[in-house]
Amino acid sequence: MTTPLAAKIAREFGTPAAVIDMDRVERNIARVQAACDAAGVANRPHIKTHKSPELAKLQIEAGARGITCQKLGEAEVMAEAGIDDILISYNLLGDEKMARLGALRSRIDVTIAADNPVVVAELTKAAAVAGRALPVVVECDTGRKRAGVETAAEAIELARVISTSPGLSFAGFMLYPTESGWPQAQAFFDEALAGVRALVLEPAIVSTGGSPNLKNLGQLRGATEHRPGTYIYNDRMQMAAGVATLDDCALHIYSTVVSRAAPERGILDAGSKTLTADSGGLDGFGLILEHPEAKIARFAEEHGFLDLSRSNTRPNIGDVVRIVPNHVCVVVNMLDEVVMVRGEEIVGVLPVAARGKLR
Amino acid sequence: MTTPLAAKIAREFGTPAAVIDMDRVERNIARVQAACDAAGVANRPHIKTHKSPELAKLQIEAGARGITCQKLGEAEVMAEAGIDDILISYNLLGDEKMARLGALRSRIDVTIAADNPVVVAELTKAAAVAGRALPVVVECDTGRKRAGVETAAEAIELARVISTSPGLSFAGFMLYPTESGWPQAQAFFDEALAGVRALVLEPAIVSTGGSPNLKNLGQLRGATEHRPGTYIYNDRMQMAAGVATLDDCALHIYSTVVSRAAPERGILDAGSKTLTADSGGLDGFGLILEHPEAKIARFAEEHGFLDLSRSNTRPNIGDVVRIVPNHVCVVVNMLDEVVMVRGEEIVGVLPVAARGKLR
Repeated sequence: MTTPLAAKIAREFGTPAAVIDMDRVERNIARVQAACDAAGVANRPHIKTHKSPELAKLQIEAGARGITCQKLGEAEVMAEAGIDDILISYNLLGDEKMARLGALRSRIDVTIAADNPVVVAELTKAAAVAGRALPVVVECDTGRKRAGVETAAEAIELARVISTSPGLSFAGFMLYPTESGWPQAQAFFDEALAGVRALVLEPAIVSTGGSPNLKNLGQLRGATEHRPGTYIYNDRMQMAAGVATLDDCALHIYSTVVSRAAPERGILDAGSKTLTADSGGLDGFGLILEHPEAKIARFAEEHGFLDLSRSNTRPNIGDVVRIVPNHVCVVVNMLDEVVMVRGEEIVGVLPVAARGKLR
Repeated sequence: MTTPLAAKIAREFGTPAAVIDMDRVERNIARVQAACDAAGVANRPHIKTHKSPELAKLQIEAGARGITCQKLGEAEVMAEAGIDDILISYNLLGDEKMARLGALRSRIDVTIAADNPVVVAELTKAAAVAGRALPVVVECDTGRKRAGVETAAEAIELARVISTSPGLSFAGFMLYPTESGWPQAQAFFDEALAGVRALVLEPAIVSTGGSPNLKNLGQLRGATEHRPGTYIYNDRMQMAAGVATLDDCALHIYSTVVSRAAPERGILDAGSKTLTADSGGLDGFGLILEHPEAKIARFAEEHGFLDLSRSNTRPNIGDVVRIVPNHVCVVVNMLDEVVMVRGEEIVGVLPVAARGKLR
């Protein structure tokens, strides 16, 4: 079964194609902005999910304070498009990056994260290039074991180093609590806050992160802003986390069934170079709306292996199906463009302008 | 520890960066061409690995008969660059693709694979657009359970359908045996060959596939050509398959250690948006040359999680390390360009021109 819209997409663009429903995008933006407003924290959406300045501007128009970027290259694309308040939530190192960061800071409001004194020393070079103060937040690890200082004592010491480094200003704390780790994050933050206040420092920014953490919004006393990313599109992971329904999923991959070599098997023209091997810890690599019991069992680079053994409905060769990805952020990063629709109408094509900005 | 070349790459390009050693690339091309020559089969390298016309031309200059593409968009990029003999090893469907395939066929030698009569019926439309015969090979599944007809009887019947379809010509068989499945492939092929000969059809092309199958080169009696892809760069999967050594690995991801929040942990600035979540079934997501006992344990989108617990040597923050990817084909697809070096010299930048050609 192929819906009329899917047939139209296949005819005009071919498959695989990424299609975003702009009504759902706008609804997702409005809902999360309202939740941030209600919780009394600013919204600073992470653009790693959509990588499109046009969508970042919709988020800002809806009330977001600014945006978050994970890579300097993403921030440059967003600044070029006119966005002027960006948090880069990542340790940056190296002369090449410091020159670019300094140039960016000379033009717009940039805040940067750091979790160690080597990075802080580097950042002074960017501040020198910028010719104005560079605000730095201390990244704190509150259970995720990724980046971030591990103790409040380290956070306090790093804040002190930042505040005494030429050209840098201490801007606050950045946390990314696990979904169950908010009490732990509170204890960490409270201790760090007391420590920096003893140094006569005040955090202007206390930032929490994550779309799955939208259910914890406002739980950290003292938080000033939140950095959700995936909520603009949502995906199976957000559904599993309980922060989105199927109707909130705004991006679908349209894919053609190109082979049905056996009754219980099929092949999609979307493989790991479209949907990626990132399972997000879920069973199967996406939900097929037309055949929800079919399992995308595994991938070759350009083949999606359909296991139809438990599916009562089975696609025919040539059917164009719609897939909700497991992890939409990594899928968008495979795409040069997404097709925008409203209801059954194609309304435009949006470049994924910051796609592949690795550095 | 950062090598002088790594320092230079970081200074000029920043990290993460993909670096290819052109001496190794040329050596890999020459070695596999010589192996094909010795086995008496033509070489038709699969360009899905490198996606660069310049490298495809090196393969052809070294003696390759033509190239293989998995996507029509890849073939268009290669044809635009002047390559005129392309096998598209994939079932194509839909009016949009048939128009493009027909236009391509009107200009160059294109052979296309099919594993079912629905696709064959579609292909007649492309032939009509081209205004000349479109050669079609029958894709045969000899154990991989991907695309491909499952029995010789189906292969014979599909060959008959192709040969009687307007504008199409039967060109032969395409197989992709598993590494241990060559006797099975031989039996399949022998039966199919006898069957098509009874229809007075003769396969001009009998194509086998896969770099891991280079160790089986020439084992299929009647094979006319082989389609290896990964051999141009190699990776940990090819090493595990026993067809490459560490010195044959020509592409490395250069990545900076940006955090060392605890003694046994570190963070690389290359995550799943650079190295991809495709583990290739191996332990860890890449081999770090400077710290071979360190494990890239998992990824966030832009973070590589280093487990240093079993490594006697541990990197410092700011070190630039060189990583052999598990599966180089999917990593190249994340990149807009690769940096070319010879020994310690940077000799150029090569665009990954067919990157992201999903359709």
